[in-house]
Parts: sequence; C-alpha cells; structure tokens
Amino acid sequence: MANSKYEYVKSFESNDKLMPSTWIVVRIDGRGFKKFSEDHGFDKPNDEQALYLMNACAVSMLQEFPDIVFAYGVSDEYSFIFRKETQFYQRRSSKILSVTVSFFTSVYVMKWKEFFPQNKLKYPPTFDGRVVCYPSTTIVQDYLAWRQVDCHINNLNNTCYWMLVKSGKSKREAQDFLEGTQAQEKNELLFQQFNLNYNTLPAIFRKGSCVFRDKVEDIVKYTECGDPVKRSRLKVITYHCDIIEKTFWDKHKHILR
Amino acid sequence: MANSKYEYVKSFESNDKLMPSTWIVVRIDGRGFKKFSEDHGFDKPNDEQALYLMNACAVSMLQEFPDIVFAYGVSDEYSFIFRKETQFYQRRSSKILSVTVSFFTSVYVMKWKEFFPQNKLKYPPTFDGRVVCYPSTTIVQDYLAWRQVDCHINNLNNTCYWMLVKSGKSKREAQDFLEGTQAQEKNELLFQQFNLNYNTLPAIFRKGSCVFRDKVEDIVKYTECGDPVKRSRLKVITYHCDIIEKTFWDKHKHILR
Amino acid sequence: MANSKYEYVKSFESNDKLMPSTWIVVRIDGRGFKKFSEDHGFDKPNDEQALYLMNACAVSMLQEFPDIVFAYGVSDEYSFIFRKETQFYQRRSSKILSVTVSFFTSVYVMKWKEFFPQNKLKYPPTFDGRVVCYPSTTIVQDYLAWRQVDCHINNLNNTCYWMLVKSGKSKREAQDFLEGTQAQEKNELLFQQFNLNYNTLPAIFRKGSCVFRDKVEDIVKYTECGDPVKRSRLKVITYHCDIIEKTFWDKHKHILR
Amino acid sequence: MANSKYEYVKSFESNDKLMPSTWIVVRIDGRGFKKFSEDHGFDKPNDEQALYLMNACAVSMLQEFPDIVFAYGVSDEYSFIFRKETQFYQRRSSKILSVTVSFFTSVYVMKWKEFFPQNKLKYPPTFDGRVVCYPSTTIVQDYLAWRQVDCHINNLNNTCYWMLVKSGKSKREAQDFLEGTQAQEKNELLFQQFNLNYNTLPAIFRKGSCVFRDKVEDIVKYTECGDPVKRSRLKVITYHCDIIEKTFWDKHKHILR
Repeated sequence: MANSKYEYVKSFESNDKLMPSTWIVVRIDGRGFKKFSEDHGFDKPNDEQALYLMNACAVSMLQEFPDIVFAYGVSDEYSFIFRKETQFYQRRSSKILSVTVSFFTSVYVMKWKEFFPQNKLKYPPTFDGRVVCYPSTTIVQDYLAWRQVDCHINNLNNTCYWMLVKSGKSKREAQDFLEGTQAQEKNELLFQQFNLNYNTLPAIFRKGSCVFRDKVEDIVKYTECGDPVKRSRLKVITYHCDIIEKTFWDKHKHILR
Repeated sequence: MANSKYEYVKSFESNDKLMPSTWIVVRIDGRGFKKFSEDHGFDKPNDEQALYLMNACAVSMLQEFPDIVFAYGVSDEYSFIFRKETQFYQRRSSKILSVTVSFFTSVYVMKWKEFFPQNKLKYPPTFDGRVVCYPSTTIVQDYLAWRQVDCHINNLNNTCYWMLVKSGKSKREAQDFLEGTQAQEKNELLFQQFNLNYNTLPAIFRKGSCVFRDKVEDIVKYTECGDPVKRSRLKVITYHCDIIEKTFWDKHKHILR
Repeated sequence: MANSKYEYVKSFESNDKLMPSTWIVVRIDGRGFKKFSEDHGFDKPNDEQALYLMNACAVSMLQEFPDIVFAYGVSDEYSFIFRKETQFYQRRSSKILSVTVSFFTSVYVMKWKEFFPQNKLKYPPTFDGRVVCYPSTTIVQDYLAWRQVDCHINNLNNTCYWMLVKSGKSKREAQDFLEGTQAQEKNELLFQQFNLNYNTLPAIFRKGSCVFRDKVEDIVKYTECGDPVKRSRLKVITYHCDIIEKTFWDKHKHILR
Repeated sequence: MANSKYEYVKSFESNDKLMPSTWIVVRIDGRGFKKFSEDHGFDKPNDEQALYLMNACAVSMLQEFPDIVFAYGVSDEYSFIFRKETQFYQRRSSKILSVTVSFFTSVYVMKWKEFFPQNKLKYPPTFDGRVVCYPSTTIVQDYLAWRQVDCHINNLNNTCYWMLVKSGKSKREAQDFLEGTQAQEKNELLFQQFNLNYNTLPAIFRKGSCVFRDKVEDIVKYTECGDPVKRSRLKVITYHCDIIEKTFWDKHKHILR
C-alpha cells in the first residue's frame, strides 16, 4: 500500500505500559487556576459551587470508567485510583492519562452553566495530569493521606489568610503574619481574633471530597400490604470524611480490595 | 512539617522528560467518534462544520502555545508539532500531553455551539492523545506525509462507500464492493457511476488542514493621500495543501527551522 | 569552566530509577552459550563443572552485593533478587544491570581455570542481562517457580534428546522423536529404553541451584572439657531444592521478608 | 503447557527500545578503580600498561560488534558509538548495555596477564555502563569533545598533583595547592617548578585514545618483477588525536556518516 513508505514513523512511538498489578493513580490539577478563579470571581478561600462542580466531574468519571474505585478531591485537584488489575487501555499510560484528563475537562465545561448560571466562562479551563503507580495498598492509602494532610494544611492557612485580608490587612501583610506559624497558632488566631472555631467549618473545606461506590438501599416497589421492598445496589456517592486514619479503610474494605 | 510522613509517595512519580533537541509531536484523536458523529448527526463522509470546529480548536492551540509550529488535522484527529528546542514544561511528557489534550477538549466544548447552534451536545466529547519524538526534520516531514496519505486513502474510500450507501446499497454490500479495490478503480467508480470527479471535491476533505503561522500583510493605516500603509506580521492561518511533496517545505522553510 | 560548553550533552541521559518498594530481579544469560559450550567441550546435556562455575559466580555475587537476598540458576542463566527496599545505586536500572553483569562475567573468567584446569578459554565468555521489578512477594515466588518449571521441562527434554543421540540417532531424528511428547512419555522413554529413572539424576540437574544466606552453626572453639562452643551465623549456601511449592518459602521466611 | 501458569511474570518486563535513527553511545566506567589501581600498583598519574589494556579491550569491541563506529577512551572509561541506524539487539537498551559491558569486562580479565605479566589480579575488576542516545551528528561530536576536554582538565590536574606529591608534598597539601588554579597556572607550575613542558607528554595521556576503522594499505603479494601489490582495507586502529576541532571529522567523514 502507498502508505507503507511512511509508516516507519510509527516505530518511534514508545511503549508506555504501566507495571502490571500495581495501583494506578491519575492526579488532575487545574492549570493556572489561581488566575482562573480570580477571573471567574470564585469565593475565597473556598468557593462551594466550584467544589461542587469538581465533585460532579469526579462522579461522572466513576460512572464513565468502572475501573476507577476511588477519587479524592481538594481545591482544583482530583486524584483517581484505578483498581490494581485494571486492563483499561492495556494499561498504556498515555491513553489512560489523556482520556481521563480530556473527559474530566469536557464534563467541567459542559456542567459549568449548571453550577455557575450567571457566570460565563471567559476562556477554556484547562487541567494537567500525571500518572503514578503504587505497588501496595498501604502505599496507596499513604498517597491519599498525603493529599488530605495537604488539604488540611492549605485550608487552615488559606482560611487565616483570607480572614486577615478581609479584615483589612494587605495580602503581603497577611502572608508575612502567617509565615512560620504552626497549626495550633492558626487555630487560635481564628478563634480569638475572628471568633471562628475551625472545626465547625464545612467538612468539604476541611476534609476534601471522597467519591466512591457504596451500598445504598433503594425501595424498588411496595408489596400489596404497602410494605416497601428494598434492594441494595452500589451507587457513586460523595463523602467528606477522614481517610488518614485506617478506620475508614477498615470500614470500606471493598474499595481497595 | 506534619506532611513529611507521607511525602515519600512522591518518590514513585517517574521522570518522563523527552529527549532534548527532538521534534515533539502530540497527536490527538477523538475517542469513540464513530458513535459520537452518528449521535450528533454529522454529515457523511465529511461534515464540514465538524471539521471547521476541529480547525478552530487547532488555531486556538497555536495561539495558546507559541512553541507549536505546525498542526495537521484530518477527520477527528489532529497532530501538533512543537519546535525541536522547546522547553515547554521542561519537556515533561505527561504535562505536555495532558495540558494540550485538556485545552483542545475545553475549546471543542466551548466552541461547539458556534458551529452547531441547533445541535446540543448529548454527552462529553473526549479525545485521547500520544506524544512521539522525532530526531530529524526529514522524519517529521515523513510523519506528516504519513498522516496526509492516510487522509487521502481514507477519504477516497469513505467517499465511495457513502456514495454507494446513499445510492441504495447496504453498508455491508458497500464494504464488500470496495474490498481490495485500488485508488484508480475507486476514482473510476466515482466518475463513471456517480459522475463525480474526486479531484473537484473540497480540498479540506482531500488534503486535510494545515495550521501554522504565516506572514500576512495588514493595512495598518492610510497616508494622507489615501495610500495604504502595510505591515507584515505572523498570523495563524489554515490551509488545505499538499505537504507530502517537499515543495511545501521548501516554500515555508521557517516552519521546521 | 571550559567544559561547560559541551556539558549540555549530559542532559540527554535519561533517568532510569526503578519503582520504589518493588523486588528487583536481574537475570543474567550466557550469550551464544550453545556454541560456547560446544567450543569448550561441555558434557551434554549437563556439564557439572560448568554448573559449579556458575554457582561459584552466584555465591560471589551474594558476597559482593549484600542486597541480593536470593539467586536461582539453571544452565547458563542466573536470576538475582534484590530486597524490595534496596537503595543499591539509588535503584538506577543501568547501574544495577551493568555492575552485576560485569561482576558476574569478571568472576566467571577469573574462576574458569579453577573449574576447567585443562581447558583454556578460547574467547571471552559474555552474558546479557535484564532487570525486572515485581510489586509483591507472591509474584516474585511465581517468577522463581517459572524459572524452575522451565528448568524441569528443558532438562527432561534435553536428557531424552542426548540419550537418543548417544544411542545412535541423528540430532534431527532425536528432535523429531521428541516433538510433542509429554513429560509422562519422556519419563517412560528414559525408563524403558535407557533404564534410567529420571528422579535419580542429580538434583542440580533437575532442580537447578538456589543460593541464599542461611543460618549455619560454626564451632568457634572448644571448652576446657573439650566440648564444642557453637555460634550460628548467616552463610551463603547453595541448595538444589524445590522452590515451586510454598513449603520452601514457609520454611525460609527471612529470605523474602 | 505446565509453564503457562507462571508465564504471566514475563509481562512485567518493560520494553526498552531506544529511539530509532539516533546515535547510541555506551559509556563504560571502572567501578571503584581508584582503589583498584592502587591495589594493583598502577603508575600515577597514568599507567601506560593499564591504558594499553583498556585500548586492547576497545579494539576487541570494534572487532566483535561491527556497528560500533568509534570509541574514545580516557583513564578507566571508554565510550562506544553505535551507528545511527544500528539494529543491534533491535536497539533494546538492556541487551546492548549488558552485552557490551560483559564483553568488555571479559576481555579485560582475559588480557590482563598479557599487559601485567607480573601482577596477579587480586579481585574481579568491574565496570558500570550507561546508554545515551543523541539525535544528531553535531551532538555526538560535542559528546566526544566533552569527554576529551574532561581528559585534558583531569590529566593536567593529575600531572600537577602527582608531581607535587612525588616532590614531597602531602596529598592534602597538593590538593589545596591546586584548588582553584587555572590551566595556564598549572602549565606554568609544571614548567617552572618541574621543568616539564606539558605538551611533550605522551599524546595518549593528553588526548586519550580514539579507536575506529581506517583505510590501511596492505601489500598482498609481489608481482614477478618484485613490485608490491597493495590493497586497501578497513582496519581497527588506535590514534591519540584531537577530536574537539572539527578538522578531525572533516578528514574522517566516513565515521559518523
């Protein structure tokens, strides 16, 4: 065929299969979202609508890609865990990365209006992504703990920062003020200066969001006597809970099985 | 810091820098676009609006990413060539791949309404992507020739196929009929049976689309006598021309310099 | 410094760190050893001296590289397992591969005369190598089982082949004769035609060789009454035992800990 | 076959093909050769016999592997350039690396006695290796220039260092003395203090060694009149010449063709 003369260029494609029997994590991150959130008037330090939109994208991901068993999101980033034995795209790294990032982006733009009906997209939101493999369940749990600890540290800091700024400090002053302070001091700052108990803030801000399939009971019909007939099925749900302590994983053993 | 206990998980990220001084090609491909084009009622064998939308995305890509020097698109795929010495994301493969695919997808969804005002997106369009490096200009040109030859072969075949189907043959019959026929025979089929000279079809169908920066002359103002004052500048333009023959590259030496 | 002008060439070196927390296996293989063994008059199907030389090299490897916890050898190949958390050469694949293959080769040539005092090396023996990572202990055990099953299959076949050849068949006839026969039939062939019970052959031929550190008791001195004072220590030893059944691993839990 | 149950472990082997149409460089380096050269009483700063042995290994390499087109050695390291289009082991990195390092090591041990007849090997000499690809001829030349500049810098420094040590300074004093001095000052030190013109030192010390195939004329027979009949052929030869200036490459265009 005429094409064969040029087909040799395919030999430059590199094989990028990920190691079998390892957990595949795709982490997606907003590109330039500091500016994007300013340009689109997001609330600071957290915009609930923006987080709900991220969560809606994550739910769509689990519905579209059955081999994603867990997702964890905070701010403008989301991590997706594929089950250890997934054969999704034969574990080809580029395919997995590009398709998940593309799908996430596509849903983000399509659902934007639903969450920001008054707020037009000024330019295309973009996400970057990376793929990392982890050889054991313990290390995947540590990965997720790492992200949630990060969520905590950043959110506590950002809460202080924006309270200071809203109370009249310049951004520079607020930053200098917080430089080097510990969690304890930040909690006290909020409580004493702003009468704010950090632990009463919405869990979605403090814990981030976990998306996974959980058993739910649906009423499928009623008997003649009017008693409900229930059936349990797996449904993609969103929680804002602690995943650092092992108790979560003990209670949800089916997730990282 | 509290985080350090878990931070070891970062050590599992692999370094994915691409070889320096090589041409980086990102090829983006519609995922499941056979179904997507049916579900959204695209014209067969080619939907002009769909191609214009793809081209609009490609133009946005060159405007957003200055290190892309050339793009070639056909059907639901687009290849983007980054200049050899680009330091875009320090040449990290995952970053380059994910950001370009994400941006392309984002523009595709945002501009959809512009090209299909009557046609609502039924679900999120998704693209996959891959990154390939080429060590020499000649091989990059061969890569592009490979895609354009593919465009020609597929388009000639699809044109025949859909003419047969529209003339009453079943899809299976049309396929069997074309099985094993050569270009010459397909041209004759079109001419004799459908009175269609293949070479008179729109170049965008036959040649695909080339997007690159070219010198254009703008009239910036008029002299007092009414004579136009022109200035030449680089503008991202879209052509449908032959890039298999070396004459194109001889005429546009600045592109793959 | 004058050098800096050219030092950019270092940037072309790729990072080749192996995934952390995985078992690293280096498998070394004789290059062209069919010819090498003929040219040096090795006994067929197995040359005991040649196997002892391979084993001596493996023992040297464990003595030189403390992070190798187990080695398994058969014929002209040897597999070396590095402990999961080894930081040997920061887990850089090329370093680990090249240094182990080089050391093995060096010992092989240096010790040759010890095992073949009458038999001069005619040309440089050469080995190739590869590095593979395994994420779990079970899979490493399966890897070793794979090699030992291979040993069994090949040795049974080779034993039959050479018995046939030594009994007067041509090499081609012997091969055709064995084509498609099962283990059962091969055992019977040996027993009925050559009065040979395969299971009485030396274990080193049938099982290959396992090299690892095991507790041994040494008499370090004698008491005044002449009673021996023993001390246990780890010593690199060579066994020819079954490693397919899990019993071996249950008994030697310290190896793949 | 019985083996299939375990054969899945092969799927963990990663594909490591090197980019096509690029120059493959294997650099081999003595492992712990500072100690090795002391333990074997090498002359300082340069041991001619040790260099000749390295060169003999390099010559054997070019004779064994026809796709090596050039080698450059200095001290205990040697770089081997494979031609751009080589299909040696289908360009599999591990195979190329392990086989070349193994062969080099094997020859080193086998030829040791030839160069050090009075000097027994005390333990196995070992080399590490790495593989790097370069996309263009210019960059390969820069790579070689990088090694030769390194040779020059190190040799000038080592020559000063050992002259100082041999003249009675302690190693620490010699090192401190040279710290931060420029090439110019080092040349003057040698000339004024030790009456040594650096440029009169043997070229093998100052320039390192280049091994490649060059046309030589052999007298193949004599005519009846006694006139020699010559034939030119390619022979692996060793030179000690400048490869930083492009003049060398202009004169030997066939090497990196």
